Amino acid sequence: MNKNRLEAFSDGVFAIVITLLVLDIRIPEEFNHSVLQEVLNLLPNILSFVCSFIIIGIYWIAHHSMLEYVSKVDRVTLWLNLFLLLTISFIPFPTSIIAQHPTDIAAIWLYSLNLIMANIAGSIFWWVSTKKENTQIKKLSNKLRYRILLIHSIPAVIYLIGAISASINVYITYALFVVVILFFIVPNPLLKKQLTK
Amino acid sequence: MNKNRLEAFSDGVFAIVITLLVLDIRIPEEFNHSVLQEVLNLLPNILSFVCSFIIIGIYWIAHHSMLEYVSKVDRVTLWLNLFLLLTISFIPFPTSIIAQHPTDIAAIWLYSLNLIMANIAGSIFWWVSTKKENTQIKKLSNKLRYRILLIHSIPAVIYLIGAISASINVYITYALFVVVILFFIVPNPLLKKQLTK
Amino acid sequence: MNKNRLEAFSDGVFAIVITLLVLDIRIPEEFNHSVLQEVLNLLPNILSFVCSFIIIGIYWIAHHSMLEYVSKVDRVTLWLNLFLLLTISFIPFPTSIIAQHPTDIAAIWLYSLNLIMANIAGSIFWWVSTKKENTQIKKLSNKLRYRILLIHSIPAVIYLIGAISASINVYITYALFVVVILFFIVPNPLLKKQLTK
Amino acid sequence: MNKNRLEAFSDGVFAIVITLLVLDIRIPEEFNHSVLQEVLNLLPNILSFVCSFIIIGIYWIAHHSMLEYVSKVDRVTLWLNLFLLLTISFIPFPTSIIAQHPTDIAAIWLYSLNLIMANIAGSIFWWVSTKKENTQIKKLSNKLRYRILLIHSIPAVIYLIGAISASINVYITYALFVVVILFFIVPNPLLKKQLTK
Repeated sequence: MNKNRLEAFSDGVFAIVITLLVLDIRIPEEFNHSVLQEVLNLLPNILSFVCSFIIIGIYWIAHHSMLEYVSKVDRVTLWLNLFLLLTISFIPFPTSIIAQHPTDIAAIWLYSLNLIMANIAGSIFWWVSTKKENTQIKKLSNKLRYRILLIHSIPAVIYLIGAISASINVYITYALFVVVILFFIVPNPLLKKQLTK
Repeated sequence: MNKNRLEAFSDGVFAIVITLLVLDIRIPEEFNHSVLQEVLNLLPNILSFVCSFIIIGIYWIAHHSMLEYVSKVDRVTLWLNLFLLLTISFIPFPTSIIAQHPTDIAAIWLYSLNLIMANIAGSIFWWVSTKKENTQIKKLSNKLRYRILLIHSIPAVIYLIGAISASINVYITYALFVVVILFFIVPNPLLKKQLTK
Repeated sequence: MNKNRLEAFSDGVFAIVITLLVLDIRIPEEFNHSVLQEVLNLLPNILSFVCSFIIIGIYWIAHHSMLEYVSKVDRVTLWLNLFLLLTISFIPFPTSIIAQHPTDIAAIWLYSLNLIMANIAGSIFWWVSTKKENTQIKKLSNKLRYRILLIHSIPAVIYLIGAISASINVYITYALFVVVILFFIVPNPLLKKQLTK
Repeated sequence: MNKNRLEAFSDGVFAIVITLLVLDIRIPEEFNHSVLQEVLNLLPNILSFVCSFIIIGIYWIAHHSMLEYVSKVDRVTLWLNLFLLLTISFIPFPTSIIAQHPTDIAAIWLYSLNLIMANIAGSIFWWVSTKKENTQIKKLSNKLRYRILLIHSIPAVIYLIGAISASINVYITYALFVVVILFFIVPNPLLKKQLTK
């Protein structure tokens, strides 16, 4: 089975999820304040929109990078990819909750668990889809394969630490989220050495 | 007419339907319980989201597999494909009802009927689109063509039995749904012999 | 500018519009009747969903057929295509109104006007995009070009007659809608001679 | 990294955003007036739908035109593209607010700021993605590169003037929006000289 339709379908899901996020930001139909005030009240929603947008962007780029090493997909990798998309398409739900209750520990745990699942799903997809040499598009050294696995799974550990830290102070959690985001956005030698070609 | 745009359009519909499902999971704006409690209350919604996500995934993979044998599409197969997409894009509606009323027999019938229609539509699409030899991308033995038809139509029978069993006990229905899902996800020789290449 | 991205973008819009329709069918959160009764109450919504789904399907296939004759697109045809997509993406709004008020004349007029605009937009797109010979993918006789224009513009006239007839009896309107739909779905020599290749 | 998946993903986001706009136009479930009256009450929503549809169309065509000059994308341009998509996918939110409060200055500022951000994001994307000669698909003169930058950034200045003018009279703002829209839709020698090939 060739990977083009898998990419097209996945791109569709990523594009829809990333765009649906904005649907959650809306001012109530009836309100007592000025429009300005209502928009300011929505700042947590806007922030969580931007945050989830960037995180889904990271997953999309990661998905993109992984598939550049994969030449063929079979039923198993097709299902692992669907499992990854399941976790991605779930993100708008915890995003919506965390926007309304930014300091609630259950909300933070749900959001963290969602991201942890997405990273685990991504790691498994990577590992299985590059398992056999004949599914690799170009020779992939074991070292590189293992390093990319680490890049996909370490954020899951950080999200877990973040979720646990929420009991102490929720801002530690948010700081850890920002660290992960910055690691993937800001060009850095660690990422460059391992992912660019 | 070549099949690329048909695939792109169908992938778009599958991707949107599978992603829209999550929109149905949301906590109410005002509530008396904790966030944790509200999320737990949504467990039936989350379960039906996961279930419908997997079922739509199965249809997408099946659609994918079928089109690998088809080289050309004409107006008739274009419309049969649209009929299949119609049944797929309807799925969020019964999913939403069954999430709110998981033990209601009418809800289960509606959901089952939707899936039955989707499998019938898929079977007809398969049969008609591979009818003439010049629309087959590679030689397709009558035996294989008939077997794939069975794989597409037998779930419809199981869903029907499931819907009827709901009068006795709704958990029989759910058990039968799970059986169908597992048959398509878990790698098994029956499926492998007939669908992989 | 090549037509691939135009097709991909248009397919995306068609796929989203056709799938969004189902969002309008939902049972209220609180109700006094049985689930069965609530679903039966939604029959007008389900019917208008199916009807709009098929009509958008017709537009998609028409768009598809038209672009098979077009080799290049310029800024003008790009904008005419966007105008066509604008009328298509508007369809869920009158669909939603006609579902709730199936016998209201204003609702029928709005729905008809939307379809009339879509057919006018499609006709203009066809005429302009095949105007110069160097934008035609294969030699297109003036006769065929003119016939396809008729196939795109005649439904607009029928929809107009339908909207006017609503003042007498709304079922005349619906009957005329069904006539147009059947003309495009049922394989017929008139359509075949002019559109298949 | 090749640009095909970037285009496919971006087209997906553009297509979804442009189609989601219509979801904001809906008549209330219970109302006291006629359907006709309710539809007329929604005229501001319909106008803002059409306006945002055209503006997103302009961005899509601009994105399209820019990528015709780009041969390769790297992580930096990938993120700049995501930043552009972030501003695009945000548009439905201020559109919804301006539809309900067309003369509110805060609503106009929010809408203008969103468009300004989109034009800044587009300008940066253009500048960086065509910076190195080896990422250009065909030789791009410095003059042309600079001119296209101007075409992308000047609207941002006009939107800013528009937003400031809202304090005097909101119709000045709307008139300036229409000027920008007409500049991009109406075929004009200034645009033609710089963008067509």
